[in-house]
Amino acid sequence: MANSWVNSAERIGADLHLDLSDPSGASGSGGRRAALIRALREAVRSGRLAPGTRLPPYRSLAADLGVARNTVADAYAELVAEGWLTARQGSGTRVAMGLPPTPSRQQRSAERVPRKAPARARGPRHDLRQGTPDASAFPRAAWLASYRRALQQAPNEVFGPGDPAGRLELREALTDYLARARGVRTEPDRIVICSGFAHALRLLFGQDRGGGSGVLRGPLAVEAYGLGFHRELLAAAGVRTVPLPLDDDGARVDRLARERAVLLTPAHQFPTGGPLHAERRAAVVDWARARGGLVLEDDYDGEFRYDRKPVGAVQGLDPERVIFIGSVSKSLSPAVRLGWMVLPERYVGDVLAAKGEREAWASVLDQLSLTDFIVSGAYDRHVRRMRQRYRSRRDRLVAALAAQAPHVEVTGVAAGLHAVLRLPPGTERSTVKAATWQGVALDGLAEFRHPAAEPDMPVRDGVVVGYATPSEHAYGAALEALCGVLPPAEEPGPDGG
Amino acid sequence: MANSWVNSAERIGADLHLDLSDPSGASGSGGRRAALIRALREAVRSGRLAPGTRLPPYRSLAADLGVARNTVADAYAELVAEGWLTARQGSGTRVAMGLPPTPSRQQRSAERVPRKAPARARGPRHDLRQGTPDASAFPRAAWLASYRRALQQAPNEVFGPGDPAGRLELREALTDYLARARGVRTEPDRIVICSGFAHALRLLFGQDRGGGSGVLRGPLAVEAYGLGFHRELLAAAGVRTVPLPLDDDGARVDRLARERAVLLTPAHQFPTGGPLHAERRAAVVDWARARGGLVLEDDYDGEFRYDRKPVGAVQGLDPERVIFIGSVSKSLSPAVRLGWMVLPERYVGDVLAAKGEREAWASVLDQLSLTDFIVSGAYDRHVRRMRQRYRSRRDRLVAALAAQAPHVEVTGVAAGLHAVLRLPPGTERSTVKAATWQGVALDGLAEFRHPAAEPDMPVRDGVVVGYATPSEHAYGAALEALCGVLPPAEEPGPDGG
Repeated sequence: MANSWVNSAERIGADLHLDLSDPSGASGSGGRRAALIRALREAVRSGRLAPGTRLPPYRSLAADLGVARNTVADAYAELVAEGWLTARQGSGTRVAMGLPPTPSRQQRSAERVPRKAPARARGPRHDLRQGTPDASAFPRAAWLASYRRALQQAPNEVFGPGDPAGRLELREALTDYLARARGVRTEPDRIVICSGFAHALRLLFGQDRGGGSGVLRGPLAVEAYGLGFHRELLAAAGVRTVPLPLDDDGARVDRLARERAVLLTPAHQFPTGGPLHAERRAAVVDWARARGGLVLEDDYDGEFRYDRKPVGAVQGLDPERVIFIGSVSKSLSPAVRLGWMVLPERYVGDVLAAKGEREAWASVLDQLSLTDFIVSGAYDRHVRRMRQRYRSRRDRLVAALAAQAPHVEVTGVAAGLHAVLRLPPGTERSTVKAATWQGVALDGLAEFRHPAAEPDMPVRDGVVVGYATPSEHAYGAALEALCGVLPPAEEPGPDGG
Repeated sequence: MANSWVNSAERIGADLHLDLSDPSGASGSGGRRAALIRALREAVRSGRLAPGTRLPPYRSLAADLGVARNTVADAYAELVAEGWLTARQGSGTRVAMGLPPTPSRQQRSAERVPRKAPARARGPRHDLRQGTPDASAFPRAAWLASYRRALQQAPNEVFGPGDPAGRLELREALTDYLARARGVRTEPDRIVICSGFAHALRLLFGQDRGGGSGVLRGPLAVEAYGLGFHRELLAAAGVRTVPLPLDDDGARVDRLARERAVLLTPAHQFPTGGPLHAERRAAVVDWARARGGLVLEDDYDGEFRYDRKPVGAVQGLDPERVIFIGSVSKSLSPAVRLGWMVLPERYVGDVLAAKGEREAWASVLDQLSLTDFIVSGAYDRHVRRMRQRYRSRRDRLVAALAAQAPHVEVTGVAAGLHAVLRLPPGTERSTVKAATWQGVALDGLAEFRHPAAEPDMPVRDGVVVGYATPSEHAYGAALEALCGVLPPAEEPGPDGG
């Protein structure tokens, strides 16, 4: 016992190879003190200094390490203050009891069980899932140029607290851009910048089941086919969704009844692919006016229209009855995390309150970069370039199917980043399964069907092909693989699932 | 009536000066068609083409404008599809009824009543409010260099869907950085990237009153002095907060009772300024272990410590009992919108579920830029530079007070970006008022007191001075103005409010 601190001192100073070099680059006694503190913490953490171990007196460790006595005294005091060590009169300084040791880094690496990987961390061989643009086509140079200009030209106040509505510059640029490109009628003061569509839904409907503190309440009418992720998000917020049947003219908005709002994808029904018919567009606005309802317009890929008729926003028909929501997730990349809500005037205050007074959420620097990207014309150029690329991919898809699977009808190809292949009845599940086996990732149409979709709406077999997802060089092989897993014409057969 | 379309044609083609040049740069009939669509939309929007107006036949307008007849036909069809126009057999094409006109841009500018400006949009002459770093000191060049490297080196998958936990590279860099700088013990898999402290609170406690779907539930013990914004956010989430009295050793954690968790600022109590005493640090961890409680450690300015003893994180004492939350809002800028939660293993899944499966929230590009900024040592360099700058400001504040207001005690100056000036009893409100009149923005201590703070804790008069907020050149004048509004020593007098 009399010798316990001697052993400790030896272990601390010698065996434990305390490294007192300071990676922060500070020199002098401050740097050495900081390094000693780190080294001691590490020794305790790793269990090399066991709980209860008595530490050597200042002067012994100081001599051992070749540092000033005060350096050791300061280090001990700091570690006592942090709770690593305890100091009691007559008992010296000891390692505190009850500190659970953490495994060393080597142990960590060996033992670490990776957390459930994100859905696409290890991608399939051929990724034809819908929902993403070609990640290899991000306009790095042009975006960097915009970011540089934005950062260099930003006034200092940019780096202070921000406006939760988003930077005014961006809201002004969007007002003009959305008017020009999408027929949206608004003012910068009625735009709220957010992180994307899901963030917009959370702001509108709240986040917690039964909370009811959202800006809007259910029941919410939705299209009978749509993104399950959105339905789940709404369900988690306690919002009941009521499916509207779809036909060749889009959602049957004539079925709207006592719902308070309706969520639509008018430019390009997701995922079946058609635009909402002109009469339905007018009718849904009429419904909103007559019933005090609200239309939520999800303009997820409005920029990508390949054939003659670009379809403007329903929002333009009545800006006080439609909330228009868009983002750069399809046009640029979901990694940028920027979206926008174009709101009727009466909702602006509530949405900002839901967003939080001090929370800009979206990176202010990226907001300024996007502003420059839009105003400089780089956004238009990028969208044009991608529109050409995706149109050519669509054409290749259609040609490949015509050649190799002429019995498969391809629909929803006038716009967007995906198409729907209609399959013979009863073949969807087996096709998706066959695709998985062949390393082709795609979704069956059934994935998107609302669980309460009306039984009188025919269930159709099909797969959704995200033709924007692969990189350019991988697309040919993906198409080839896709054609290889489609069911042959002659044997529609029963579902193999 | 017979002539109505002639008048319209004249107005559309001539009087209305339709501008068919296409800002998107497209040429040919597609560009002209798009330009005509925009011009007609604008004419309807502005009210120049009134609802019900009959439009000229294709060929008339085409001749008038010098475009192909099909161009006009396509434009009309598009606008019918969008609901701007209606087409009925025998009645021709007319402007749809019931489109509310929006004011023109000139009208807009003249009439626009600005939305309530954000708190600091027009700053005071001397801004000494706490909470922000010197916005003029953002390291633009170094950040841009990191952003460029990050963008150039990023693999393509960066631009696809992201991991809601945040980029692994950043979580790895933070694991090492926080261990070295803050004594935090963790693994990359237990870090979740978020937008900042408020976002972390929302993820932990939910967002909606009474929802109860947050990861944690109240009641939550908080320090008797703290940020009102956080209390409001918690109240909005339906979380009851219970104030812990403060004394010279920090929060009275011995008063913890049936609360499930306690929110503390152990490194630098906000706003009063002291560190939590070593015994209290140990005691609060003991409490958490004994009662199954949880410590939330708000490490809002842990990097900024000026005197001998850096104080490591309480988290290091027991990583399974402490959630450590930090951000770059004080060290870099709140405009970057990046923060982190270091979680006990058992909370990781729930926090990610609350965050949302597909939502990266924080800009992925900024995450990679921050990774480079940390790993390259630029973050350390910036923090060192700012530490020197703020320490010198603190010294100037202390010197100015010693010279001009020696009766005012300044406390909480060993760390952070703000100090508290103790004032003679009964002078706080009049001092804040006098400061406002003199263009000096600062907060009275009363602002931060929990409304339910125990009456046996003495109310102290004081003001919180954010000495980091002004730019370097503005600081001298701000100090001068501050000293000018402090109450004189000889007349403590009653509160003038």
